[in-house]
Formats: sequence, structure tokens, C-alpha cells
Amino acid sequence: MSFNTFGKLFRFTTWGESHGPAIGCVIDGCPPLIDLDEQDIQKDLDKRKPGQSKFTTQRKEADKVKILSGTFGGKTTGTPISLIIYNEDMRSKDYGNIKDKFRPGHADFTYFKKYGIRDFRGGGRSSARETAARVAAGAIAKKVLGKKIGKKFKVVGAVTQLGILGCDTNIWNEKIINSNPFFCPDKSMIKLWEKYLLSVRKSGSSCGAIIEVRAKGVPPGLGAPIYSKLDSDIASAMMSINAVKGVNIGSGMNSAQLSGESNSDEMFQKNKKTNFKSNNAGGILGGISSGQEIIVSFAVKPTSSIIKKRETINRFGKNTSIVVKGRHDPCVGIRAVPVGEAMLSCVLLDHLLMHKAQNQ
Amino acid sequence: MSFNTFGKLFRFTTWGESHGPAIGCVIDGCPPLIDLDEQDIQKDLDKRKPGQSKFTTQRKEADKVKILSGTFGGKTTGTPISLIIYNEDMRSKDYGNIKDKFRPGHADFTYFKKYGIRDFRGGGRSSARETAARVAAGAIAKKVLGKKIGKKFKVVGAVTQLGILGCDTNIWNEKIINSNPFFCPDKSMIKLWEKYLLSVRKSGSSCGAIIEVRAKGVPPGLGAPIYSKLDSDIASAMMSINAVKGVNIGSGMNSAQLSGESNSDEMFQKNKKTNFKSNNAGGILGGISSGQEIIVSFAVKPTSSIIKKRETINRFGKNTSIVVKGRHDPCVGIRAVPVGEAMLSCVLLDHLLMHKAQNQ
Amino acid sequence: MSFNTFGKLFRFTTWGESHGPAIGCVIDGCPPLIDLDEQDIQKDLDKRKPGQSKFTTQRKEADKVKILSGTFGGKTTGTPISLIIYNEDMRSKDYGNIKDKFRPGHADFTYFKKYGIRDFRGGGRSSARETAARVAAGAIAKKVLGKKIGKKFKVVGAVTQLGILGCDTNIWNEKIINSNPFFCPDKSMIKLWEKYLLSVRKSGSSCGAIIEVRAKGVPPGLGAPIYSKLDSDIASAMMSINAVKGVNIGSGMNSAQLSGESNSDEMFQKNKKTNFKSNNAGGILGGISSGQEIIVSFAVKPTSSIIKKRETINRFGKNTSIVVKGRHDPCVGIRAVPVGEAMLSCVLLDHLLMHKAQNQ
Amino acid sequence: MSFNTFGKLFRFTTWGESHGPAIGCVIDGCPPLIDLDEQDIQKDLDKRKPGQSKFTTQRKEADKVKILSGTFGGKTTGTPISLIIYNEDMRSKDYGNIKDKFRPGHADFTYFKKYGIRDFRGGGRSSARETAARVAAGAIAKKVLGKKIGKKFKVVGAVTQLGILGCDTNIWNEKIINSNPFFCPDKSMIKLWEKYLLSVRKSGSSCGAIIEVRAKGVPPGLGAPIYSKLDSDIASAMMSINAVKGVNIGSGMNSAQLSGESNSDEMFQKNKKTNFKSNNAGGILGGISSGQEIIVSFAVKPTSSIIKKRETINRFGKNTSIVVKGRHDPCVGIRAVPVGEAMLSCVLLDHLLMHKAQNQ
Repeated sequence: MSFNTFGKLFRFTTWGESHGPAIGCVIDGCPPLIDLDEQDIQKDLDKRKPGQSKFTTQRKEADKVKILSGTFGGKTTGTPISLIIYNEDMRSKDYGNIKDKFRPGHADFTYFKKYGIRDFRGGGRSSARETAARVAAGAIAKKVLGKKIGKKFKVVGAVTQLGILGCDTNIWNEKIINSNPFFCPDKSMIKLWEKYLLSVRKSGSSCGAIIEVRAKGVPPGLGAPIYSKLDSDIASAMMSINAVKGVNIGSGMNSAQLSGESNSDEMFQKNKKTNFKSNNAGGILGGISSGQEIIVSFAVKPTSSIIKKRETINRFGKNTSIVVKGRHDPCVGIRAVPVGEAMLSCVLLDHLLMHKAQNQ
Repeated sequence: MSFNTFGKLFRFTTWGESHGPAIGCVIDGCPPLIDLDEQDIQKDLDKRKPGQSKFTTQRKEADKVKILSGTFGGKTTGTPISLIIYNEDMRSKDYGNIKDKFRPGHADFTYFKKYGIRDFRGGGRSSARETAARVAAGAIAKKVLGKKIGKKFKVVGAVTQLGILGCDTNIWNEKIINSNPFFCPDKSMIKLWEKYLLSVRKSGSSCGAIIEVRAKGVPPGLGAPIYSKLDSDIASAMMSINAVKGVNIGSGMNSAQLSGESNSDEMFQKNKKTNFKSNNAGGILGGISSGQEIIVSFAVKPTSSIIKKRETINRFGKNTSIVVKGRHDPCVGIRAVPVGEAMLSCVLLDHLLMHKAQNQ
Repeated sequence: MSFNTFGKLFRFTTWGESHGPAIGCVIDGCPPLIDLDEQDIQKDLDKRKPGQSKFTTQRKEADKVKILSGTFGGKTTGTPISLIIYNEDMRSKDYGNIKDKFRPGHADFTYFKKYGIRDFRGGGRSSARETAARVAAGAIAKKVLGKKIGKKFKVVGAVTQLGILGCDTNIWNEKIINSNPFFCPDKSMIKLWEKYLLSVRKSGSSCGAIIEVRAKGVPPGLGAPIYSKLDSDIASAMMSINAVKGVNIGSGMNSAQLSGESNSDEMFQKNKKTNFKSNNAGGILGGISSGQEIIVSFAVKPTSSIIKKRETINRFGKNTSIVVKGRHDPCVGIRAVPVGEAMLSCVLLDHLLMHKAQNQ
Repeated sequence: MSFNTFGKLFRFTTWGESHGPAIGCVIDGCPPLIDLDEQDIQKDLDKRKPGQSKFTTQRKEADKVKILSGTFGGKTTGTPISLIIYNEDMRSKDYGNIKDKFRPGHADFTYFKKYGIRDFRGGGRSSARETAARVAAGAIAKKVLGKKIGKKFKVVGAVTQLGILGCDTNIWNEKIINSNPFFCPDKSMIKLWEKYLLSVRKSGSSCGAIIEVRAKGVPPGLGAPIYSKLDSDIASAMMSINAVKGVNIGSGMNSAQLSGESNSDEMFQKNKKTNFKSNNAGGILGGISSGQEIIVSFAVKPTSSIIKKRETINRFGKNTSIVVKGRHDPCVGIRAVPVGEAMLSCVLLDHLLMHKAQNQ
């Protein structure tokens, strides 16, 4: 059971609401003797934090993380690591408008139906602010993976489609990806994306995105069939991110259209290493990593808090309409990039630990 | 932890290999006092069983299920329900060919890498034969849902894309779907699909498919944010099915291309009931069911056991090639339809029980 | 998996070290719409907090709890409740002595063997200070049980043996129990216990205790055979408390010496209610509550941090001896009373939720 | 969640009723490449099976186990191992008497209260027959531990108290223990126990027992504080065995009466090995194994199916009385010895795997 806990052996539990005093998470099952300080986590949080460009929400959050437990003398001790991030820039008055109305396409309605109560300020628990806690957990997972697997391990995410605009993913250069505000891997598209997103924002609308995350250096053998398959756990992880509606592994939905022979990634041995001629499988066969690059992509739907007027109902069951002002990301998908990286890292570490348990 | 167990409160554990003496599953957490006999399960198994048309594998399996525990006087008792299905038509000699060679695109390679040993006969544990056990568990889940929710509850799956050929899903008539060997909802396409699949088979190749599963009558409020979101658990469930590479909820991957206003499903109240103008969300918002129809689709890659010759390696690390004869589905996606229905049913029941626990 | 998480449906995760900045816990799965403020939790914490009499450690901790998430407008929202208690009176210098030496009978040695690193200040994670977080979680469990079961529900714990001195448990009056510093139910023994404990303390030694916890008003039917039996989960809960070495349900270890007829609690119907002539079962049969009072007792070993000189080894594998000064409880068992009450409450709530899930 | 599943990484799920067609279990998480055949399991089952002496039930069960999955070529493959034991000697007519009446001290009443239905034949799911499945799982755990830890690993259980008669446990010789029908470690008591038990039986009564289980060769470091402590999991395991009412680790309940200095097991280094002067801790400190022998004891209450007449009620809420004839163990505790050994083995293996995961 795991309402707010993710993972099996490397587990994190997140807590906190968008406009409460703080958010945070507790990481359990982290191996001991890993070097860890706040800066290791902060640098990943900085990649996700809002207000960094005109393309994301203007809420200003330093997102400074504090380690409250689980380390001693700069090293993990194997005991739970508690992290806290204080909320700073909360303008609850912005939300008077949605106190009683449900935003179409938003969790407002379903939280109310489920619990009979909801913290409406900024979306409360359903806010994407929760993902900061995931990024923090992911930063720790990366540190552990770096130590256990070595330097060849690397996770990189990018936006490969911004609304209606795709891009070329053949170039996959981390430097390019991380030097533009869209995490776009294709230099030639950046200007166009910028124009497009500004026009979306100006029109009071929003747009979706596709994020792709790749992990290099993953050893073969990770994944626990049948119901903890690596791809099954990745799908669960990605679909748990706010606003995600689809997940692909390798060729994903497109594999339905491939022929048997083009889909099957042929293998050959060279220099005592196993090689593959293609990677439709996205590095996973039968739920177990093959040693190829892990390739995952997921779709983030457009932000549902938009200025365009929409018909809806209120909590008293009356018809009404809504216009959502305030500070919102025109494309929340952009800030999902570090979240996807974090979630993939956590799943991989979890499976590395599971593999050690059963197979070593 | 759940290598071979699925679910949290309604749980099933499957066991068995393709060419061992039997396969089976143990269902735990089933509510008591539900009418249940073998025929309730058998009728779903019959929908999945092989050898029913020329479009599926010619392996002949009666797939007769036997209840070994957990019922008394025709009713469930709340104790674990053990089901067994004996394997009958095993031609292990068919598999001498793949004893030492890895089929490209198959789990052969990764199981060997993970465990250092594998039952190569018919794919062993990685065989889609395991899904019979899921269908059996799903049949029980449906019985419970039928009692707890009532007759309005209904799960129906169909093939909506066969290889390169799509179809019109606007007509969604259970009778049509279940009266053709492809579970195709679009009458006008059946002939074409038949021709296409026969040509695929004749050429020694295989093709993929997209399966869509819809659940009517699901009450709002099911789903446990953040890490047991209903969609997150559905994604995990579907991705755990053999050969699945992508999962969509509602508009899925396409939601990336929608504008904020077209994506957000507007709401209105009529006759004291909440209505939605569209269903891009696939019935799930913030990980919680909204009361709309649940819509899930997933892609099944082409069967990797094909007659076309493919380059590969053997377990001694030598380059070789492989041609897989024997009895294989040219499109394993077709038989995934009842499996998708079963998995969705199990997830929904699991969440219904979780909802009762926390909220009632 | 649950290294630092307790419970299945009502779950709490604790974190923090004795001499870190804070300790805390995250409660997940709490039903929504339960009235809850900090004072509800504080009053239980006050019962456990140190420095309240000369019979407990002189460490001064206000143990003020702060709710960081999960409530809105004074009610629970169904989302995780994060609680924090700052550490205040930390005298790390007291622990220079045990930095490199292992206290016999203490977790010092085993934590070091397991993790290769330990926060030696005040026992770090192995400190009984962690139990404050359990008491906080238990306070919430009691609130929920009070609402779900009603006022007849009541959990009361007492010390029934202090070192070599027992007492009469036939009088079980909550007022008496909570009005003496030993939680002793037998007025006539208090003076003697006081004298005894002062002499133990003066001699630089310590003593153990037996704690008994009783729950009234528990409905029949709670408990999930076979491996989540109510008594099995209670045993696990109590044995997880620091220094506990034995757990009894009802007649416990003594039941081995009873005859079949005296052990079996005869039943009779009166006024349409089921009654029992005795309660050797401690309210649990076959792992399921019978409706009788739940009776649990557990033994707490003597504090291992004592002034008396003991032979031991240091972390370099050298023989040495140790004398532990500083602020320690001469009988840590006394402060285990509210912890036992909390753990029993959490287990009962957990099973109430599980029962609702499967049986309602 | 684990109603009928035990363990975290090495998990087994049991199923079956006393008078159904069969009982069985599914073992998941077993490491691959362990030699395993049916005989490895059978020899432990033979130790538990009924009808072996006049001191146990006269039900005749061969208890022949069959492996249905999870091995290939005599070795485990890492996939689930399904075991089945057919029920043979079922005399359901014996149970007409208890169809509507509840045996005092038995689970009859609480199963009915919980589920509203019960398989009354032979106790149904609450029958001690379920423990055969645990013994089977334990046999596999021992094989794995033997390979992972080596030959120094050994688990031995004995009866140390039979009703009112104790024995000397200073001699702990496996040969003696396993060569008498009581698993008594003290040769000098066997005759007396025999006389006593025959008189108990003759009088139509029953008696309880205390079982002690010891594990040698357990490495230090096993155990996952705080809520998967080794002793906490052992307590849960033992308390889950039918009729168990109390569990001790090391000095157990008696530790309450020890002084701090006599309780703390002093340590010293000799020949580069850590030694302890005593073992009050039963090999566990802070929930983690210390490298000393693990010592666990538990009390089994007297069989509640006795010929002596007892007052009770029936399921219609009427007062009545009951006399239970049929085939029952006069002391069910005797056959709990192999069950205790099995459960301890499973817990230890589970923790060995958990330790590998986090710490290696």
C-alpha cells in the first residue's frame, strides 16, 4: 500500500500542500555511506523551481531544501532521510475564485468527490508543487546509482514535443538540452517554440508536451517479472506525475504498427559485448533491462488553469463558468523534465536493490 | 513488494510456466459471500483460450479451471481462492531450436541475464500463457464489482488498431465486438483485417495491435493520490501484460497536442447529475475517477517468434541467426483483449476496496 | 516493505535521530473529515515526555508538535499528515564516551555492524526518542477510532511489574493509573515501587518492567488471518518498541500451563449479547477480535546505559570497559506505557480499515 | 498488505482449507540456481505430519508435496514456486456436531462474526493444517540459507514445557530432540511427559506447550529498524501460528526482572572474534542480529477441541453446550516445533535478502 509512498526498497513518502507551511519527503531504504549534502539535492531542485523564465509560473520559490535526519558527518547512515522545503510565495487570495468552483480538467472536482473536503488553495495536495519532493528524492537516487553503477550511469530528460510542435531527437546532447528554457534537444526549433509558447500564453490558453527521458549505463537484469516489471513500474511512476496521460517505452504506441521483423531488435556480439541493431524495446524485454539505453516518453496534458472562460459547476451543484487568473505555467510539461528524470532514477535504483536482494 | 502478486487489497498471485504441469493463481482479499463457481471463471477463460480461430496459435488448451479453496457452498468465504489450470498440449520438442539461442525482441535474453537460468520451453514464465491466470482473477473481480456497484458496471475491450489498420471506435457495441475473431468494434473493417492478418501470417511475419478497454458505471472517488492514483495503477497493470509498450488514458499521448480549452472537459449539471461535454481525461482527474467512463488503451508489439530469419546471438556469446517455427499467434494483441478487461477490473475493485477503507 | 513505516492502511513513517534537529512522522491513509488540531496530539505527547518526575531521564524536552500538512480548517483532508517535533535539549558532549565504545545490551554494536556508520549521539536513530513520533501517530488513531467506533472505545495502559515487584491488576482504574508517576494500577504498591526505583537509581543500575495495555469497545471481526492476524500485528507492534523482549496476548506464556477446559473461555448469551466467562484469549481468537476486551502485555528490559562498569569492546575490536553517565531513565519501561497505548490504537485502526475494505 | 502472504522479499502465500481438495503455497522471491527437489521439502513435512505417534491426531495424511512450478532441471529459476499437498483423510461427518455450535476458545466464533460464513469442516481455513504449507516454505528457506550462509547455519526447535512440566534446556542436542515424539531436549523428562500426556488425553482434556527455536550461524547485521526489526518480524511470525499466545526473544518476559547489569550481555574480543558472556538478548539488539545464537520461544495454548463438556452458544444466538469428539491433538504444541523452525528460517532469509539489498 502506498498512497503517498513511492518505491519498494528505495522508498520515498511525500507530504505537503501547495499553500501549507512546507512540503517535504522522507526517503527510506537508502544505502548507508553515500556522500550526501544539501547541495547535492539543491542543484536538481533548482532545475525544477518556478519563476526561472517567462515560460513558467511567476510564483517565486527559492525551494531551499533542508536535511533533517538520516545523515551523519556528510554521509547517509541507512536511516530515514527527512527533507523539508518551506513554502514562501503563497498568495492564497488568488484562489478565492476557485474556492467553490471546479476547474474543468482539474482534480478540484474529484478530490471533493472523494474526500468531501479539499484544501483549495493552489490545488492543495493535487498541486504540481508536490513534484519538488520527488526531485529531491531523485537527486539522492542518482547519488546512490552513481556510486553503485559508476560514472557511466546518466539520466537525461528533454521536451520532444511542445503542443503541436515536435522536434528532431536524433541529436541528444545534454548541453543543448539544459541550456534552453524548454529542455529542447533540437537547437533549430528553440526560436519557433519560444514564439509559439508566447502566443499560447498571450491567448490565455495553454499547451501540452511530450517529455522523453533516457538512462544510459543501466546494467542488464533489472526488473522483476511479472508484476514488478521494470517497464510496468516506470509506467506507474510516470503516470503518477501531475497531468500525465500517456506513457511509452521505446517505440511505445507506435510499435503496434511495426512488422515483427522490424520491431525485433536484432543482436550481435562484438568485442565480447552484446550489441543491438535498433532499440524499439527501449532497453526493456520481458520487463527486464537488456543493457541498452532505457527510453521512456510521456505526454503532459495542457494546464487546466487557463484564462479562457469555461463552463463548469460549483460545489453546490449549480452551473456556472470559470476564468482562472493567477500565476500558472502555460506549459506545465516543461517543468516535468526534472521530475521525469527523478522518477526514472528512483525506479532504477529500486530495481537495482531488488536485483541485489534476489540475485546476489 | 510484489514480483508475482498484483493488487493491494484485492490481490492475486500467479504462478506457472508455459510447459510445466499447470499454471494457476491465488486470489487474496476477496470479499466473502459472493456467489462463485467454476463456470463464472470459465466463460472469461474461454474468451482468451488459444486455438479458437485461424488467427491465433494452434496450441490446443481446454483451459479448464478448478477452484481448490476459498469457496463453500457456492459462495466465497473471504479466505484465499486457489485456482489451477492444467497444461495439456505441450510440445516441448518444438523448442529445441531456442534452447540456446535468444529470439530478438523476446525475454529469452533478459531472463537469462537476470537469473542465469531459464525454462526455455515455450518461453517458460515469460509466456503469455500466464495471462490465463489474470483472466481468471479478473472474472472474480467482475463478480464482486457486479455485486458491490450493481448492473450498471461493465467492462468491455476491443482491438482498435490491427498492425497498420485502424478502425472507427465511435460505434462501441459489445455484441459486434464479441462476435468477430478480432474483437473489432467496426463491422466495416472486419473483412479487411482478416485479409491483412492472413497475409501477415503467410509471409512469416507478425503484427502489433492497439487494444482499448472501457469501464462504465465506475463511481467517482476511486483512486488514491499520489502514488496509487487510479491511472498510475492502470498504467502499471497494462504495461505488465506481455508485449505491451505504451499506455494511454483518455486522449493519452495525443493530449500533448490539444489546447488547454479543448482538453479540459467542460462540466454541467442536468437532472441533478454531473455531466461532461467530452472525455479527454478518460474518466480520471488527479488520479481519481470522475464518474465518467474509464477509457484506457495500450499497444501490443508484434509477436517476436517469427519465421522470418533474424540475426541474434546464442547463450555462449556467439553470433548466429534464428527462424522460429512452431505455433505462434501472428498477432498476440488479439488475445490481449480479455486480459486488458481483467486487469482493469482488478484495478477498479482494488480501488473500490481502498476507497471503502479510507472513506467509509 | 516498511523499514520505518508502520501499518498497512493507516500508516505512519517516522524519522529523526535523538540529537538531530528534529524528529517527526508522516501519517498516511488517515480518513478525511476528522477533527484534529495540535492539542489533540500534544496531550498524549505530554504523557510520554521526559523530565516529568525524578523517575525518568532529566533531559528537558517540551516535545511541542507542529502539524505541517494534511489538515484544513481543523479537519483532516485524507492527505498525508506531517508532524514535526524539534529537539531542544541536546547535550552531545555527553556522548563522547560512547563514540567508539559499544554499550553492552545496546544497539550501538549492531547498528555499526549493519551500516558501518552510526550517529552515536544519544543513540541516534536507535534512541527511544523515536517513540514520541509513535505517540503522535497514536493520538490521531485514537481520534479516528473515537469517531468510527464511538465513545465506548478506550485504550488504557499501565505498568504491572516494576523490576522484581509485581502488583494487583484486578483494579484497573484509569484515574489511579494516570495519577502516579509509574502508571501503577495498584495504589497499595506505589510507595514501595518508589522506594525500590530510587534504590535502583542510586546504585547506578536500572530495572525492567511489564506493561499491560487494554482496549475496551473493540468490535468483533477485526483481524485478517493468516498473516495479518490481529495478535500477530500487535506482537509485531509491541516488539518494535525499544527494549521490548516479550509479548503476551491474554494469558500469554502462561497459557501453556492451563488445561484445555480452563483455557477455553466459555460463552453464553444474555440480553441478546454474547458473553464470556473468562478472557484467557485476551479478546482474540484465530487472529480475529471476539468483542471481548483486548489485553496485551509486554516486557521491557532494563536500560542498558548504566553507571555500573561493564566489560565491552570498542569499534576497533579492542577489549575495554564502559561506565555510562549522562541522563538516562532508570526504568525506561515507565515511559513505554503511552507508546504501548499508541501502538495498540494504530493496529486496531489499521484493522478496522482493513475490515471495512474486505467486509463492508 | 498480506492477509495470506508472509514475508517481504522471500514471500510465501498459503491457501487451502482442512477439508477442501488440497492445500498449498506459492513461494515468491526465491533466489535462482538453488538445488531443489520434492524430497528436500518432504523431509520437513514428514516431521510435522499427523498420525506419527499416539500423542498426535490420528488423522492419516501422507502430506506428499508436489512442485508445480519454479524449478527447471532440479534448480530454482527465480520464478514463483507453487507447491500442492492433496488432502486425503477427510472425515467431514465428524464435524456435523460443530456445524452450528462454536467451540469455546476456537476461531469458529470469530470467523463467523467476521465473514458471515465459514467452512466448518475441520476448522476450514483456521485449521492447523495450514501450517504444512509453512513447513514447505521453510524447507526452501533453509536450502537457500544453507547456500548463502553455509553449513554453520542451523535451526533447531524443541518443546521446553509440556503443560505443567518443564525441562532442562542446558542440553540442546539435536539428536536427542529429534529422537523422541515430544521433541524434548531433556532425556530425563521423556518418560514423565509421556505419562502426563497420556493422562491428559485419557481425561478428555488437552494441554499447552512452550516451544523454543534456536538459530546458529546467523551473521550480524540482519534486521531493519524500526518497523522491520528482526525480533518484531519474528514475533509476528510466531504469533501467526495457530494457538500461539506469547512470544519471547532471549530472556523474554523474564528480562523485566533482571537488573541492568545482569541483563546487558558483556562483550569481549578473542581470536579476532566478538564474544558475549551471556545471551539475554537472544541474539538481537536494537532489532538487528548480533551474531549470537538467535533464541525464540513461544507458548501454544491447549487444544480447544476437547471431549470435556463446555458451555457455549450456537450461531443462532442460543445457549447450548458442546463436547468435541473426533481426531484431535491432545497437545497441538508438539507439532508446532517444525512450524516454528520453518517460520524462523523464513524470517531470517527475508532479512538476509533485505540486508543484501540495502547494504551490499
